[in-house]
Amino acid sequence: MSLRNLNLSKFYSGAVLLALASVFSVSSFAGSVILIIGDGMDDHQITIARNYLVGSRGKLLIDRLPLRSTAQVLTIDNDNPDKAIYVADSANSATSMATGVVTSIGRIGTSAGDDKDLVNIVELAHRQGLKTGIVSTASITDATPASFYAHISTRDCENPDMMVGTDPYFDMVIDCSPDLKSNGGLGSISEQLIDSGVHVALGGGMKHFTPLAEGSDQTVLELAKESGYQLVSNATELDGSGAGKLLGLFSPSTMPVMWRGQDDRAAEKPDPSFLNRIHSMLGSVTYPEPMDCESNPEYIDIPSISLMTQTALDRLTDEDERDFFLMVESASIDKQSHQRKACGSIGELKQLDESLAVAIKFAESHPDTLILVTADHGQAAQLVPERTLYSGIPVPVYTPGHVARINTSEGVIMAVNYATNDFVSEEHTGVNIPLLSNDVGQGSVPAMVTQPEIFDIIKSHLLK
Amino acid sequence: MSLRNLNLSKFYSGAVLLALASVFSVSSFAGSVILIIGDGMDDHQITIARNYLVGSRGKLLIDRLPLRSTAQVLTIDNDNPDKAIYVADSANSATSMATGVVTSIGRIGTSAGDDKDLVNIVELAHRQGLKTGIVSTASITDATPASFYAHISTRDCENPDMMVGTDPYFDMVIDCSPDLKSNGGLGSISEQLIDSGVHVALGGGMKHFTPLAEGSDQTVLELAKESGYQLVSNATELDGSGAGKLLGLFSPSTMPVMWRGQDDRAAEKPDPSFLNRIHSMLGSVTYPEPMDCESNPEYIDIPSISLMTQTALDRLTDEDERDFFLMVESASIDKQSHQRKACGSIGELKQLDESLAVAIKFAESHPDTLILVTADHGQAAQLVPERTLYSGIPVPVYTPGHVARINTSEGVIMAVNYATNDFVSEEHTGVNIPLLSNDVGQGSVPAMVTQPEIFDIIKSHLLK
Repeated sequence: MSLRNLNLSKFYSGAVLLALASVFSVSSFAGSVILIIGDGMDDHQITIARNYLVGSRGKLLIDRLPLRSTAQVLTIDNDNPDKAIYVADSANSATSMATGVVTSIGRIGTSAGDDKDLVNIVELAHRQGLKTGIVSTASITDATPASFYAHISTRDCENPDMMVGTDPYFDMVIDCSPDLKSNGGLGSISEQLIDSGVHVALGGGMKHFTPLAEGSDQTVLELAKESGYQLVSNATELDGSGAGKLLGLFSPSTMPVMWRGQDDRAAEKPDPSFLNRIHSMLGSVTYPEPMDCESNPEYIDIPSISLMTQTALDRLTDEDERDFFLMVESASIDKQSHQRKACGSIGELKQLDESLAVAIKFAESHPDTLILVTADHGQAAQLVPERTLYSGIPVPVYTPGHVARINTSEGVIMAVNYATNDFVSEEHTGVNIPLLSNDVGQGSVPAMVTQPEIFDIIKSHLLK
Repeated sequence: MSLRNLNLSKFYSGAVLLALASVFSVSSFAGSVILIIGDGMDDHQITIARNYLVGSRGKLLIDRLPLRSTAQVLTIDNDNPDKAIYVADSANSATSMATGVVTSIGRIGTSAGDDKDLVNIVELAHRQGLKTGIVSTASITDATPASFYAHISTRDCENPDMMVGTDPYFDMVIDCSPDLKSNGGLGSISEQLIDSGVHVALGGGMKHFTPLAEGSDQTVLELAKESGYQLVSNATELDGSGAGKLLGLFSPSTMPVMWRGQDDRAAEKPDPSFLNRIHSMLGSVTYPEPMDCESNPEYIDIPSISLMTQTALDRLTDEDERDFFLMVESASIDKQSHQRKACGSIGELKQLDESLAVAIKFAESHPDTLILVTADHGQAAQLVPERTLYSGIPVPVYTPGHVARINTSEGVIMAVNYATNDFVSEEHTGVNIPLLSNDVGQGSVPAMVTQPEIFDIIKSHLLK
């Protein structure tokens, strides 16, 4: 994709599209946008995956994208929206990208403090008669995908049975009652998905579609069928699905990941000797045994992100060649890192890289397609020395956290450290995160953006 | 600095320089290179400094550079040079940038395994009659600066008295005896600096110049004066220094940093209650008190990196307008992070940003000057949530490492976590690191490089 080729192809397809625009009398033939989000995919995650998959000198496909930027992740305090918070969650960071507005932790397409609905890129696309697609390996009602089509005060309200309760993570009572349809709201996230008009929605989260819809004797799933969605629930069905609106729900909640650690091992704590427990300058320490990554036996008839991406692209273009917006999320880079499962994160980053190959292939025949690859926030995992800097002194020096020692493809042990807390699940981090683009982003993706400016880039390209 | 302006200015000065080249009959008027290295300056360090200095929505000057790339940091095993190692030290990573060759931990300008001298960019510049400058806040004989002018098997051999010994960090006997001049070698690092012909060398490390030079009754410092170096030792002297070769040594070893934590506090361990020590699900925890950053009282008559950079630029151009190579290192972003001193790292990143302003101002009147800003490797510090994701549950969730809670300029507490080990000093990390450039890098700085390719970029620009 040289600049020269790009410019020629942009010129060529620009001319064709100008001609077509007069036929359809829309102003929306500027080019499609494929936004690929690696949840928690900061530079540590990418380096860890690169070392494992292609070696430290190798390049992943994301590494080969020609334009590099970085995004400042912004969050504000719900109780005081003038106050910055330095570490995001997926709800507020995805809302930044979907709406261009900075909001508070846990919010889906709504503003901090006053809880107003924020117009999202899916709605703007629909207003222009463009189709949209949402793909995720999380529940399709989870924070990242939901932020692109829904408006609700709290990410927890994923289905009609979850509109009131408590959130164990975020120290707040869940009360989405103002969002109940009976109160003039838009309903739960799964209900909002069906009402949103998204053309293709593929992911996990079947359990959020089996409750009865609010005030109805039909389940959300039955309403989806009534609204014209074809339903598929495994890779085989997805591969054979026909034209038209498509809802794929491939697991009860988060989809099983492709890889796991040997015997499902996660990172483990180094084991200090008795003497070392008495005094840190004495004794010795036993590090966890190195492990291979292996296939996850639960990954059966689960569609890959590539297959979901390819199917979404097919469905979005099978009736006409109008532009579209497609968001693809590899969700479990983050979720596996929370659980200190480095092999899980690596496998899901591999899946993301393969879905990028699908997007790039599509863009070859649709050269105005803007491909953006980014993350939503940083994650805990750090690539640390397998042999401490201080291995020369007779004192056991080791991480206070959990470490996974992984045998990589180039025959080296890679140490991945998780040490943001000692609880069941690690924290996010506040680092600025990668933003990459194909050549189509030339001139519109500067070297650094705030995360809400990603919305502006998408909007300018899709709707200019 | 729009692309259009850039191209015009490049064209214009290219034409002038072609004309000048025939006068001087050298092929070296392509443009100068200023390489600014933040030691350990990964994206976490930059985000932490940004939040403190200009707020989460603000931009540092490095954030405003128009071209963004990233560098894969490569290291190999000295005992098996075919084997990758995933976390570098400053010696091998600076050698990558200075020579274009991947080497092993601790090596300065020499190859892994067979210990061959590697030609560096300073030597190539001198062969073309170009001047060079080396600026660092570390000892000027420390690993990063040394890699640009010296060749020695081990970074520890900084002066004639340190050629044989043991290195407590790297589990090896120090034996630079093959590098002794009496054995046909180039001598210790401080001796090599004097012999290198570097025109301007400014930094710490006076103690490495006071020993007698090998086989001589003169100190290295006396030899430096004999070789024509003017010697300065504080900011006042530096500011008043005249033309010609200049050696500035402003402290015995590493220069004092500009900032420190309140009352010199570093990050501290959270303090669990008695009950929590009995069982992790019980009791409570007390987090370290928030702190301000304050001026370091030891920072007296110490030249700023900006002043060193400005003086180096003046000295490199005061006799003629020929191109030059200047390396500027803010060394203590890393050294302070090793010590879990977030305020120290922030202050030294601020210093780097201010030296970039000096470089950019110089480039305004010398528009072919390529400015590169990069790091050498990642560091331990992580920006973590001030309020854990799990603050809603009645269990104390806290880092197993050390945390600094810092009051930022926007009135928010920022939590910086250090948890790669529990020893006196944190580890490096293996993350790929930022590489930024001014517009002059357009076309020669791709979106991703390996660290040795930074050498190729410098060489192509300086010597084309």
